[in-house]
Amino acid sequence: MDPQTQVPRRRGRPPRRRDDQTDTRELLLRAGLEVLTEKGFSATGIEEILERVRVPKGSFYHYFKSKETFGLELIGRYGDFFARKLDHHFHNHALSPLGRLHAFVDDAKSGMTRFDYRRGCLIGNLGQEMGALPESFRMRLKDTFEDWQRRLAACLTEAQQAGELSDDVDTQQFAAFFWIGWEGAVLRAKLERTAAPLDTFADFFFAGFRSK
Amino acid sequence: MDPQTQVPRRRGRPPRRRDDQTDTRELLLRAGLEVLTEKGFSATGIEEILERVRVPKGSFYHYFKSKETFGLELIGRYGDFFARKLDHHFHNHALSPLGRLHAFVDDAKSGMTRFDYRRGCLIGNLGQEMGALPESFRMRLKDTFEDWQRRLAACLTEAQQAGELSDDVDTQQFAAFFWIGWEGAVLRAKLERTAAPLDTFADFFFAGFRSK
Repeated sequence: MDPQTQVPRRRGRPPRRRDDQTDTRELLLRAGLEVLTEKGFSATGIEEILERVRVPKGSFYHYFKSKETFGLELIGRYGDFFARKLDHHFHNHALSPLGRLHAFVDDAKSGMTRFDYRRGCLIGNLGQEMGALPESFRMRLKDTFEDWQRRLAACLTEAQQAGELSDDVDTQQFAAFFWIGWEGAVLRAKLERTAAPLDTFADFFFAGFRSK
Repeated sequence: MDPQTQVPRRRGRPPRRRDDQTDTRELLLRAGLEVLTEKGFSATGIEEILERVRVPKGSFYHYFKSKETFGLELIGRYGDFFARKLDHHFHNHALSPLGRLHAFVDDAKSGMTRFDYRRGCLIGNLGQEMGALPESFRMRLKDTFEDWQRRLAACLTEAQQAGELSDDVDTQQFAAFFWIGWEGAVLRAKLERTAAPLDTFADFFFAGFRSK
């Protein structure tokens, strides 16, 4: 959702000469994440990414077979990064399960604020663009959402065990509802450049804890 | 949200010769709506739209100053079309206010199904793409969402008057919540090519009527 910890701002100029190919590849992927979380896939040219990393035009295909391969790798990388972020919050036993969800929401909000609401969620961006993307992206994006959903559902089950959420709630469905709405909220927060849509959605989601 | 009634499939070949300029302009706008609800703005080239309408390349700028002007006109047109759709449902006094909302959701679902979940919401698509769009689009997209929100809030107020929704509910906030989540649901329905995300979100939204 908020790639800020994965794609730190580079300080100063990157080295012009690189003997380490892995390093260049890594820089291309990081630049790809930065640009794609802002602008999506269709609006992003390879040239723009190469320019950021300052590697010569034409180098790209030394590292990646195609823009499609590059995109698939970015989906995997963003998905993994975000899964680690979720685990960081959802496995934090210093807080109650409900407290962990609040901490995640606060973290995501401050992440979006830090980047002036320019950066959204890579998976949401690509999901919205799916009509113009290689078909190979579809299953990978779907799987990523399902992975996040499973992680959230596990935390919701812990909330039930802690008495914070009614046992009647279908945790898988409640988790599915969260990601559906959350992606909508991130979209609106980017559009309106304010955290208000994130708060509006989160307030309704958390109201489900009290009323159920 | 679902542009199906606005952009009917053309039957057969369009006329090759058009003396009526208004007609060509109209065809360009309709083709633009079709393509942009599927693929968004960035991935759509003017050429693709011209090809659909079979007008010569270069004609586009006879009718529209720029792709930006064209996009702004499409936002206005889609917003108006969708506002009329909302009014059609929300002013249908044959149903209770809650029944009208259900009818809208069913209509939107069947619209997405009819187009095999290829077409989403033009406003949602462009909202997600905002990082790559002309800045002039931002306010227009925001205004469109706010217009839909006001129309829904009025129906929710009627639901309160009819005793279908608790008086405690802030109808503006509840309406804001609906559009935030609904856009997320449309995104996922397109990605997964199923109505399940629309149902998941709607179920939680309608649960708010029972519990509040």
